[in-house]
Amino acid sequence: MYGVGVDLGATYVRTALADREGVIIDKLVERTPKQGDNMAIPRLIASMIKKLLDKTGVKTDELRGIGIGSIGPLNIETGVLINPPNIPFKNVPLTEPLHREFHVPVFLLNDCTAAVVGEKHFGAGKDVENLVYVTISTGIGGGAYVDGHLLLGKEGNAVEIGHTVVDAEGKLICGCGKPGHWEAYSSGTGVPKLARLVFEENREKYAESMLVKRFGCSLKGLTSKDVYNAAKEGDEFASRVVERANFYNSIGMANIIQAYDPEIITIGGSVALNNVELVINPLPSLVERFAINNIPKIIPTPLGGDVVLYGAVALSLGLEPIKYI
Amino acid sequence: MYGVGVDLGATYVRTALADREGVIIDKLVERTPKQGDNMAIPRLIASMIKKLLDKTGVKTDELRGIGIGSIGPLNIETGVLINPPNIPFKNVPLTEPLHREFHVPVFLLNDCTAAVVGEKHFGAGKDVENLVYVTISTGIGGGAYVDGHLLLGKEGNAVEIGHTVVDAEGKLICGCGKPGHWEAYSSGTGVPKLARLVFEENREKYAESMLVKRFGCSLKGLTSKDVYNAAKEGDEFASRVVERANFYNSIGMANIIQAYDPEIITIGGSVALNNVELVINPLPSLVERFAINNIPKIIPTPLGGDVVLYGAVALSLGLEPIKYI
Repeated sequence: MYGVGVDLGATYVRTALADREGVIIDKLVERTPKQGDNMAIPRLIASMIKKLLDKTGVKTDELRGIGIGSIGPLNIETGVLINPPNIPFKNVPLTEPLHREFHVPVFLLNDCTAAVVGEKHFGAGKDVENLVYVTISTGIGGGAYVDGHLLLGKEGNAVEIGHTVVDAEGKLICGCGKPGHWEAYSSGTGVPKLARLVFEENREKYAESMLVKRFGCSLKGLTSKDVYNAAKEGDEFASRVVERANFYNSIGMANIIQAYDPEIITIGGSVALNNVELVINPLPSLVERFAINNIPKIIPTPLGGDVVLYGAVALSLGLEPIKYI
Repeated sequence: MYGVGVDLGATYVRTALADREGVIIDKLVERTPKQGDNMAIPRLIASMIKKLLDKTGVKTDELRGIGIGSIGPLNIETGVLINPPNIPFKNVPLTEPLHREFHVPVFLLNDCTAAVVGEKHFGAGKDVENLVYVTISTGIGGGAYVDGHLLLGKEGNAVEIGHTVVDAEGKLICGCGKPGHWEAYSSGTGVPKLARLVFEENREKYAESMLVKRFGCSLKGLTSKDVYNAAKEGDEFASRVVERANFYNSIGMANIIQAYDPEIITIGGSVALNNVELVINPLPSLVERFAINNIPKIIPTPLGGDVVLYGAVALSLGLEPIKYI
């Protein structure tokens, strides 16, 4: 018995064939289609799956199922990706075309929910019932198990923690248009906005920063990577921005600890995983300022950049009892 | 078959005998013992239960169980109330003495978790799988079902939402000692602190407030009730305090909506239920400023001040599958 996991991201589609133990036998990566019609994505996924089966000699009737962890917003009832940002298709059916093609169960969850499923079955969550996964990447998102139960919510949008408020003053506006959201301050897209805010608060002090010299006073074109790299080189301004991002991360994490009372929080996403010492390591002591529940372990996900893919694999093997087509 | 529900509060112990449908047949209320030894509370509860049985003619062997919704902190594994604030006993065993006395299952949850159990089985949550209960009382607390699952967490402290951060600046300190917690701003103990903060921010503007005239510039002795009553009489300062409390409530509620994606949020607690128009009615439109998930219904609990007691009754009847002694 085998399973196929699919990690559908805004930039890449990644598919993996795994055995019944969840060991990944082969993987493929393609760019997410941005042209054509709304079937371009399911067509690509189907062709990638066929390629995986061909390469490995696994037959369709040996497949237990297909699991998908996808960018949102999703309608998990109908299996459709709805008006995704940065993708020019309005409604992208995901589960139904794959079910029609391969005649196996197709399971769909949003990427962060899939990620925590991966963590539970193949990662740091194997022995715990209360587990939160947080991604700090282009955006901020999460997934959670409480008492061994995977949280979905009325429309599958529980644990949309990137859009919780960490700044009542709403100094920064989130990509979603609302003020004060965690994602607006500490994500890949948030950190450059936060850098501009910190600079405006004290232009004179930070005028000599290597970032200001390189990107000018508007800090136009600045990325979160630039900020973290400059902080690693000891730039005072960049270090102050990182400190502020960590401050907002500590509020977001403390609120998670109060909301779900987890035993462990694992953190993934490129911003966090590329800067473990700067982003993740300070958190356990920082959250103590705000949280009153016993502080859980807070660690980088051991599944790294494959955490969503592992979750999709777990779904494909039927390890998590969710609805499917 | 009958059940006994117990609502153990800091001030009152309330017990109810209910039939198998959860209809309350008789109730008793006593002051929570503050003198004697750590068995004073379980002894009182046992004597109240015996009195209820005597009065109604129900026999012990007709009891399905005893359910307790209690102030915390609790160790729900051992069934012990641990160092409760405002009660001079260190460790108060609850489940074990009652089990020994009545030889029936004894179920224990913290009061807000018990309340949401009451809401689910006997209140506004009967037909939904995703439900949050919030109390705005002396403190702020909550309980939640997600996908029909009652959230407990690693130590029963999930949904400790009164201690989530709503103000990154931490202008007010919570009773727990940490800065910026929701409870420090909008609870019965928080609103007077918030009033002092609002007054300090603009002493001249509010010097003529009836509250300042009555309580002086230190606002010493001011209660949340005074603030809401003055707001109802049109006092500008009091209205501004209520508006600020609502602002922080809207952040706390928006974070709940993002964390649990509920279909309905019910609100109880004396501060909210005594001021429904001022506290609860503005919330549905206020949360839209911050939340991106679809906004749930937000209503006062139809169970009123009995919501914890109904939850305890539901537990006693075995309606919620939790561990028991």
